[in-house]
Amino acid sequence: MRAGRDPGLKRVDETSEEGAAIATLPLYTQIREVVRRRILDGSYAPHSQMPSEAQMMEAFGVSRITIRQALGDLQKEGLIFKVPGKGSFVSKPKAFQNLSRLQGFGEAMTPAGYETYSQVLSARAVPAEAAVAQRLQVAPGEKVFEIQRLRHLNREPISVDVSYFPLLLGQRLAQEDLPARDIFVILENDYGLHLTHADVSIDAISATEPLARLLRTPEDAPLLRIERLTFADDQPLDFEYLYYRGDAFQYRLRVERS
Amino acid sequence: MRAGRDPGLKRVDETSEEGAAIATLPLYTQIREVVRRRILDGSYAPHSQMPSEAQMMEAFGVSRITIRQALGDLQKEGLIFKVPGKGSFVSKPKAFQNLSRLQGFGEAMTPAGYETYSQVLSARAVPAEAAVAQRLQVAPGEKVFEIQRLRHLNREPISVDVSYFPLLLGQRLAQEDLPARDIFVILENDYGLHLTHADVSIDAISATEPLARLLRTPEDAPLLRIERLTFADDQPLDFEYLYYRGDAFQYRLRVERS
Repeated sequence: MRAGRDPGLKRVDETSEEGAAIATLPLYTQIREVVRRRILDGSYAPHSQMPSEAQMMEAFGVSRITIRQALGDLQKEGLIFKVPGKGSFVSKPKAFQNLSRLQGFGEAMTPAGYETYSQVLSARAVPAEAAVAQRLQVAPGEKVFEIQRLRHLNREPISVDVSYFPLLLGQRLAQEDLPARDIFVILENDYGLHLTHADVSIDAISATEPLARLLRTPEDAPLLRIERLTFADDQPLDFEYLYYRGDAFQYRLRVERS
Repeated sequence: MRAGRDPGLKRVDETSEEGAAIATLPLYTQIREVVRRRILDGSYAPHSQMPSEAQMMEAFGVSRITIRQALGDLQKEGLIFKVPGKGSFVSKPKAFQNLSRLQGFGEAMTPAGYETYSQVLSARAVPAEAAVAQRLQVAPGEKVFEIQRLRHLNREPISVDVSYFPLLLGQRLAQEDLPARDIFVILENDYGLHLTHADVSIDAISATEPLARLLRTPEDAPLLRIERLTFADDQPLDFEYLYYRGDAFQYRLRVERS
């Protein structure tokens, strides 16, 4: 690497203890870490356009393949994203929800300063598929009520929530102000139900075409997939599939050893 | 759909209440749900080859595009996987780890009847990158000890764990039987440390090339990515990045409302 062309890299190469240490890493890793730091410290601002590959080749004095390796890793981690024909842009910091306590998305995110909004995609009675029937303790094929919502965080789509309820409860919920209010809050405050806990499972999948379209991600983008069965007074009441954009959201929690 | 050609579909179309209900769903959804049920009930056994597209077109009496839509959804959910030139195969059921209590992977999975094994990929002193330095409360660039392990579940790769420790602790750990033993167990039982809790964050990413190669997934396959900072007597001791195969693993936990 021809050090010194790029002020950031120069600092890393020559000046600080940190630089001396990082300089022992492979070239593309060094560049990736310099760029990562600039994203995390705000030097490259959220949603701003990154320098072009040609500009970065010039600034760092390295080959196109090295720049692409560095940017490719950052893209896969979700720190930057590509717009075809326009270049790379800085992603916004991931929003996170604390999973230590059962909360609706609005309840969790609003106190953190986010604006939330739900677009109701559909609300209808459907025959319970096997997995839904088993969770809600009804017969397979028995009618349950399905509510599909596209949830927005600061006006951008963040998750698709597909929720199943016992038929009458779901029909009643469909009359409520679902765009603005969390279902958990309606169940507790308006209906007087006593939510106790939820059983949650978390895995990762690739976005199917309909999910990608709704969430405005590429098809096959990584999604966090949640199955959540919520209980009121220990009766299962609400079974949901939640699909979160992997590049925009994370769960956090503290886990005790004993 | 020409019902009745396939015994499973015939039952769904004509016989049971469940079938009557499911028959109102779109065609490819019906087929997807029939196939899903056969996978989940073991009719299509783990690792067995699925019927070919041509066989399924014949059996269900539908077009290739309908079969592909149904199988495409199941593939994205991880219930089946494709082997180029060979066809589709049934995935094994996802293993899950309970996240309600802080446990090492071996500790958590062995009582559930799984065989676990860790291949040590590297164990070396490295300069702390910014994120690691911040978590372990050392200066950036200061030497820390990195241990990279490829963890196996029933002899197949399931996760890559990249763990960072204070230098002397890591050097000592590198002498232990890491292929067979969890680091948490060594820290507690052999070193007398008192592990208290961990701060965990969970998101989803696409596999980078090195992770895909180690985990034997396609590049860009969805991975569950965990950052975990473990404390002993409230001092940070072990900072890790864990990358789990999305198609093979899930976390489960119970979350209380209050």
